[in-house]
Parts: sequence; structure tokens; C-alpha cells
Amino acid sequence: MGSLDSNPASFDAFAADAEGFQPLNADDVRSYLHKSVDFIYDYYKSVETMPVLPGVEPGYLSQLLQSAPPNAAAPFDIAMKELREAVVPGMTHWASPNFFAFFPATNSAAAIAGELIASAMNTVGFTWQANPAATEMEVLALDWLAQLLRLPNSFMNRTSAGRGTGGGVILGTTSEAMLVTLVAARDAALRRSGSNGVAGITRLTVYAADQTHSTFFKACRLAGFDPANIRSVPTGAETDYALDPAKLLEIMQADVDAGLVPTYICATVGTTSSNAVDPVGAIADVAARFKAWVHVDAAYAGSACICSEFRHHLNGVERVDSISMSPHKWLMTCLDCTCLWVRDTHRLTDSLETNPEYLKNDASDSGTVTDLKDMQVGVGRRFRGLKLWMVMRTYGASRLQEHIRSDVAMAKMFEESVRADDRFEVVVPRNFALVCFRIKPRAGMTEEATEAANRELMERLNRTGKAYLAHTVVGGKFVLRFAVGSSLQEERHVRSAWELIRKKTTEIMSGEVSVQ
Amino acid sequence: MGSLDSNPASFDAFAADAEGFQPLNADDVRSYLHKSVDFIYDYYKSVETMPVLPGVEPGYLSQLLQSAPPNAAAPFDIAMKELREAVVPGMTHWASPNFFAFFPATNSAAAIAGELIASAMNTVGFTWQANPAATEMEVLALDWLAQLLRLPNSFMNRTSAGRGTGGGVILGTTSEAMLVTLVAARDAALRRSGSNGVAGITRLTVYAADQTHSTFFKACRLAGFDPANIRSVPTGAETDYALDPAKLLEIMQADVDAGLVPTYICATVGTTSSNAVDPVGAIADVAARFKAWVHVDAAYAGSACICSEFRHHLNGVERVDSISMSPHKWLMTCLDCTCLWVRDTHRLTDSLETNPEYLKNDASDSGTVTDLKDMQVGVGRRFRGLKLWMVMRTYGASRLQEHIRSDVAMAKMFEESVRADDRFEVVVPRNFALVCFRIKPRAGMTEEATEAANRELMERLNRTGKAYLAHTVVGGKFVLRFAVGSSLQEERHVRSAWELIRKKTTEIMSGEVSVQ
Repeated sequence: MGSLDSNPASFDAFAADAEGFQPLNADDVRSYLHKSVDFIYDYYKSVETMPVLPGVEPGYLSQLLQSAPPNAAAPFDIAMKELREAVVPGMTHWASPNFFAFFPATNSAAAIAGELIASAMNTVGFTWQANPAATEMEVLALDWLAQLLRLPNSFMNRTSAGRGTGGGVILGTTSEAMLVTLVAARDAALRRSGSNGVAGITRLTVYAADQTHSTFFKACRLAGFDPANIRSVPTGAETDYALDPAKLLEIMQADVDAGLVPTYICATVGTTSSNAVDPVGAIADVAARFKAWVHVDAAYAGSACICSEFRHHLNGVERVDSISMSPHKWLMTCLDCTCLWVRDTHRLTDSLETNPEYLKNDASDSGTVTDLKDMQVGVGRRFRGLKLWMVMRTYGASRLQEHIRSDVAMAKMFEESVRADDRFEVVVPRNFALVCFRIKPRAGMTEEATEAANRELMERLNRTGKAYLAHTVVGGKFVLRFAVGSSLQEERHVRSAWELIRKKTTEIMSGEVSVQ
Repeated sequence: MGSLDSNPASFDAFAADAEGFQPLNADDVRSYLHKSVDFIYDYYKSVETMPVLPGVEPGYLSQLLQSAPPNAAAPFDIAMKELREAVVPGMTHWASPNFFAFFPATNSAAAIAGELIASAMNTVGFTWQANPAATEMEVLALDWLAQLLRLPNSFMNRTSAGRGTGGGVILGTTSEAMLVTLVAARDAALRRSGSNGVAGITRLTVYAADQTHSTFFKACRLAGFDPANIRSVPTGAETDYALDPAKLLEIMQADVDAGLVPTYICATVGTTSSNAVDPVGAIADVAARFKAWVHVDAAYAGSACICSEFRHHLNGVERVDSISMSPHKWLMTCLDCTCLWVRDTHRLTDSLETNPEYLKNDASDSGTVTDLKDMQVGVGRRFRGLKLWMVMRTYGASRLQEHIRSDVAMAKMFEESVRADDRFEVVVPRNFALVCFRIKPRAGMTEEATEAANRELMERLNRTGKAYLAHTVVGGKFVLRFAVGSSLQEERHVRSAWELIRKKTTEIMSGEVSVQ
């Protein structure tokens, strides 16, 4: 962007126009950012008092903001005013310490700072050459996190012995991690089964427990797998809703007997619904019989595995093909940041590599560098490693572990409170910082009536604006999910939420109308 | 994150621990961000003096930073020091006004501020309920931009007549926009052709000019299309490397005659290589004969179409199925921000919708809201609309148009200078702010010698650190790409680059050794 607004006929006619539009004028950048920082400071100081879930109706924002883009420029303060007055009141405040829904999107000062700097540098590191520092920082951050997770060396880009065959990439979502590994596994299975082009795709089968995130089944369809060949393996209370390897083996063998080609298994460590943990090692053993790719989705609970007491959930990971987890969930790194590691990066890049003329360069040709575009769906990419590295550099393993343990301790407290009140039950064992509980059916209460009472409880709680909980259905039971860990959360918020739950439950049981 | 570091046995044992780790402590956030803003201010003030392309070797960063993550926490200043001393010297500076490679990643104060606020709020608006304001802001920003581009009402979410059938979503990359529309088109074609599951996929064909970005061909493979059915239509100088509709028709008809099912055509407005413009309307007419989906990829040049003098490049867009463009390229919005509009959102959501129990809510059930997760690969998503809205709200159409016109004027100046020096030639007509030029073959010079001279010129230029240009091959010719528009760029930078090009060319022609 220059400062020209006419078409001079030659360079001689160029003249510095100090009045021209300078979108990155350093003083403006500083001024806008200082205003933004003030806003953020106020927001964090006051978000606790705002209703977690807003009471707005669909279409509310179009009532408040103009429906057409303005022609004229306006002071930045106008946008900030509209942000305060129109946007904030319509937000679901994930940053609120009273947010207990879904999984928390944890965050930290270091992460936000890292993302800000990345936004300002605004590089596009598709190849190593397009930004060596960004590529190497991402590789380093992934190697660091691999060490915190005690992943085997085979998943690391660089070990004390030099450059390895493994490595990773930071993606936007777990879904993308699933998609790119599914495509790699698909192509390998097509080659293995002697398919003519993609003709053999109708014979490829994929597997996951019925508790696996719905996005897995979507990713399979995106990659072209036949919906009829996507196996959702039933789970039950007997395994706490984890995948049963014996059942998996049986289904895979039946598929092979029917002439199908088992291609990919997704194992989840910490399911979204109830935090079930699929047995990674046993699944890898089953998969090995069929040469199927095993991916471990540890989006949420992977973060906990930086603590020794949780690391056993990843036992057997040395025998899987890929693993992903999302620091944007539980490792204090703002969205988006999903880390994917693969044991053999060539198995990914064989399917994902492109080599257009305009991106050719000596470094790529030399084969000594990583071009991260070849491990993701797209080409363009932000400076993704910076914020994750800043989080680890600033807080160190000790603070990160303290953060996980603190959340788990608060969840444990909550769980004990639920267990101590005989109106409630904890529906599945708590593994991490998610407690799945419900109002227990009293004598003579049907499952429908129990669900109605719990649904009523959730709705009454959420309407107060003082807490936001989501639900799930596990084993046919409607269950409330209480997810601890929003980054501004302290014990007092958990305690207040529990008091609110007790109060609303008493109201419901006594037939009282909610008075907020 | 609370402040617990032990496991008290009950709530009674909870005690506020002011010393506990608070990752989002408002004072820390403010302090870290102020330091980051100071860094950014200095960076923008000094980036002009830094080598655009760093002279580092692969693996350089691992020599400078520790290879294992620290256990102890460290002051944020340590991370900032390492950023300054280890990271910055290894960066390719896309923000440098001397950056002329690829396409510029334009940026602005308003965009960075918007992204910062989004990072701090850190919401995950997968459904409307999960953040009504974020969903509605994204819809509004897309409707605003659709108006700036004069897209037909059919692509808008909300018109003066109420909610329409069209709409959009903000994605991370053009590749994702291609992928999700390819999948929607694929599924529609499978249904249309009576396929049993995905068995019919081997009959589906897709089309694009040979100048189309390589990521299109990759997206086709990700979606499971048979590599043998991906048609790369040859182009030549006679159409300035744009897709020839007559040739397209011929190829599509031949495919139909062979029993294949034409499914999808990608038309590009402003190719990456040379900014060729495929004729949108004529392609839509051809596609209509075969019921094939037409997607317009206007990643770079779409931004120019907010100016009346460039809008004609989108003529016929009312007859296509989808269009995407990336404000992170040329509309002063930091990465990542790719806007996708579709004429019938149901055609996308039919393929991409998921409905797991834990995301069910009354608003979604009512059918009156948009759940943006159903228009993208993943589930999680940032508050993507905020920065784009802030850019339009703050700069208005007038400043945005001024920005485009200024870049184009600078490119025109550069082009005229090239044309005025008879050692050079402009290889394809300039359409926007990209000039494709080369040292002209002198009498008796072979094509190989010409390429060698131009390659030498590029390498000498890039080694100076005072300019960074990339290349391409068009019609068998090795060509230098001079892309104007980095957001700190002024005429003087373009002029200096041109002087440098002349000087290096003189050196090469006189056989001098580069002294840089």
C-alpha cells in the first residue's frame, strides 16, 4: 500500500504523499492496540459479572449494526464502541470463570502475546524459505511438546541423534489432523490393495468407537470413504464407554473375511462426551494384524499427559502412526492450535505434497528442510509455532503441570460434592477435569422423567447467566457435563456453581418456579 | 485454572491462594501485551532495514535455542529476548516494504486489533448458541463484503427481503473453500448419477485451467476424486493463459460421451502464476449444460473487485455456485481469512452437517440460525468475523478502494518502467498489481540462456536483502514476478527495487560479479 491516489505517468512524478493512507502506520498500530489492550483488561476484570450465555434472539446483531458497509472511514473508536455495545452483550463468554460447558478454551497472557506478534509479522510460511524462523519455531515447539508428553523419539523431528523420520505440524483443528491422516492412510491402502486409481475405495473400511467425536465420521466422508464402510463400534458401561479391542478385532476380521480392507482406526484419549479413554496399546496391537493406520485423538486430554500421573493413558503410543492434541483446549494457548505428530512424515507428504513452479526454491530442492504446506490441507499458514513456544518458554513444564493439576483438583472437589449429595449421581468415572453427573432417578421415576428433570435443571442454570453447562447422552442417560478449567476460574466459581446447582435442584424437586 | 496446588478434601478446605498461578491475570496480560506492542512498533519502524530474505541455513534455530522445554517458569522478557535475537534474524519479512514475492500478505492496524481482541475473548463459535455475536458478526461481515463486491443477493445471508438461501463462512485458506465445495459437488453428483454409496466416484470428473493453483488439484485428491479424472485444461498466450470455454466444452462433452460425470469446474480470477482471469460467465454457461458446480477462486484479485474498474472480472458470477476470496491477501486483513459464499447453503450443509448430542440446542433445532461448523472441515473456530468487520468499519469502502488503486498505480508505474527499458519485456499483460517480466532474449540467445540470465538476476537481487522477488514459468518462459502491495510499501520502495533490478541486470550483462 503506497500513498498514491492518481496515476502519474512516470516515476519522476512520484512524490511522497504524507497524507496518503497508511494502513500499518506504526503510530496508528500502537494506538489501536493500546485501545484493544485496555478493552481486554476491562473485559477480563468484568467478564465474571456478565451473563455467560447471552439472552439474545437470532438476528439481534443486524438490529444494532448497519446492514451495509460504510463508504467513509471512521475513527477506530467507533468500531470499539460498537464492539462494546453491540457485540459483547451477544457473546457467549468462554472466558468467563462461570463457563463450564463443552471443554474450556484455556488461554494465557503469553499465548495472546505470541498470537499478537504473529498477526503483526503476518508471514506465510508455506515453505521453509518463505519463513525459515516460523518453520523452525514450529518444528521446535512440536519437539518440545513431544518431550513434555514423553512421546517416543520416532515422533520427533530432531533428536539428539539428528533429524528423524517423524515430525509434526500445527493445524487449525483436530478435524484437519484426522482428515490429512485419513487421506494418507487411504492412499496407502489403495496402493497396498492394488487399486486402479480410486476404484478400490469402496473396499476400504475405517473404525472408531461410537463415542468418537462426530467430526471423525465427517472427516471420513470428506476423504471419500463410503458411508457404509465407516464402522462405529458400540461401547457400554462395562468399559466405561471406551473402545473394546476384542470387539474391534472381531469387526475388522469380519470385514477382511468379506473382502474389505481395514484402513484406519481412530482411538480417543478423553472423549468429548464423557472423557472415556480408548486403550491405545491394545488397539495398536489389533491394527497391526491388518496394517491399518492408528490415529490417537487426544484433543482435550492430551494436555493432561504432560503430568506423570496421567501419562499412562498414552501407553502404547510408540506403536501408533499418528497422534494429535489441541493446546487450544487445555494448554493455555488461544485458538487455533492443534498439534499433529506422525511417525513417518513421508507417509503424509506422499499424499499432500505439491510442487508448483512459483514455490520452487533451492532449500526445498535440497531435501534438507521441512515445507509445512505438505502436511496440511492448504498452502497458506500463519506463524503458528510462536504462541505455543511462548507458552512453554514462559511458564515452563512446572507451571503447565500445576495448571492441569489445579483444574483436576477442582473437578475432583466438585465430583466429591456431587457424590456427597444423595440427590445426584456421577454417571461415569471422572478421568480428568470433566464431571458427568445428573439428578438421580428417585423411586418410581422413569428415565424420561429423569431426563426431563435434568434438562430442566440445565435450562434453569443456564438462564441465570451465572453458569453455563452443556449436556450429553451416555448409555441412554441424559447427563450434565461440568467441565472445569476456564482460565479465570478459581475454586470460588466452582463452589458457587455447585451451590447454584443445589438450589435449582431443590426448586425443581419442590416444584418451585425459577425466580432466577 | 484455579490457584490450587494440593488436593483439599472438601470445599471447606478451599482457600483463595493469591500466590497461585493465574495465566490470565489482567495485569500480566496488559504487561505482556504492552511489551508486544512496543516490539511491533519497533519492528514496523525497522523492518525496512532488515534483509527481506534471511541468510540462515536449515537448522539454524536449533543452534540458538535450547532443544528441550524448560522446567521452570521464566519472565516473559526472556521469550521476547529470544524472539528478538534468534527468531527475527531468521525471518522472511513479509511485512517489509521491500517484499515483492508471491502475493503480499496485506495488513492493517484495525485487523491486528480485531485479531488481538478475538484471541483474548477466545470463543469457539461452532454453533450459533456457542457464540451468537461471533456467528452474527461473521454473517454480517460476509454480507458487507458481498455488497462491496456487488455479489448478487443470492449469495447473501440476509437481504432487505429477509433471510436468503445463500450465505457464507470464513475459512482459513482457499484450499478449504475448494475442498468443502468439491465435497458438496461430489455428493450431489453421486446422488444425481444414482451411485451406490461412493462407487460412482470413479466416474466423476473435475476441471480447471492448467494455470489453476496446485492446491486445487490437491483438494480434488483429498476429496477422493480419481487422479485420472482431474482435467488440467491447457492454456496459451492466445487467451493470456486464461481458460478457453470452447476447449472446456469440448473436453467435458468428450467425458460425457465416455460415460463420465462432469462434476466441478474451478475458475480463477487472478491466477497465482500470472494473474490470468478465467471468463466466469462463459464458464458458467458451459457448466450449466452438464449441471457441474462452478467455483470461482478469486483469492487475490477478488479484493480488487471492490473497485468499479475491476468488477467486470466477476461478470457472470450470478450463475456460479460458489466464490471465494481472501482478504488476508489483498484486503488488509491479517491471516487467516478466506471468505466463501455459496448460492445455496444447503448444498454445503447437506454434506458437512453433524449433530452430536453434546452440541444440540434449541436455537439449532429451530432452524432459524446458522451453525458455522456445518460449512467447514472442522468444528472449532475462532471469532473469525471480528477483524474483517473492523477493517471495513474503520476504513470504509473509500479507503479500501484507495488502497487497491494505489497498489495498482504503483504496479503500473513499474510496468511502464520495464517497458521503457529495452533490455526487458513484460511477458503477460498486467491485470492487477502483479508484473510478470524478464530480461528479454537478445539476438542469438537461446531460451535456456535467457532463463539462466533471469534466474541469475533473481538470485542476485534476493541475495542483496534489499528486495525479494519470486518467479514462475509461463508458456515455457522463466519469468520474474514483481508483486506490489506490501502494506508498508511506498513508491520509493518500488523505485528503489527497480533501480536495483537495473543495476543487477547491467552487472549480469557486463559479466560483472555481484559484490553483494
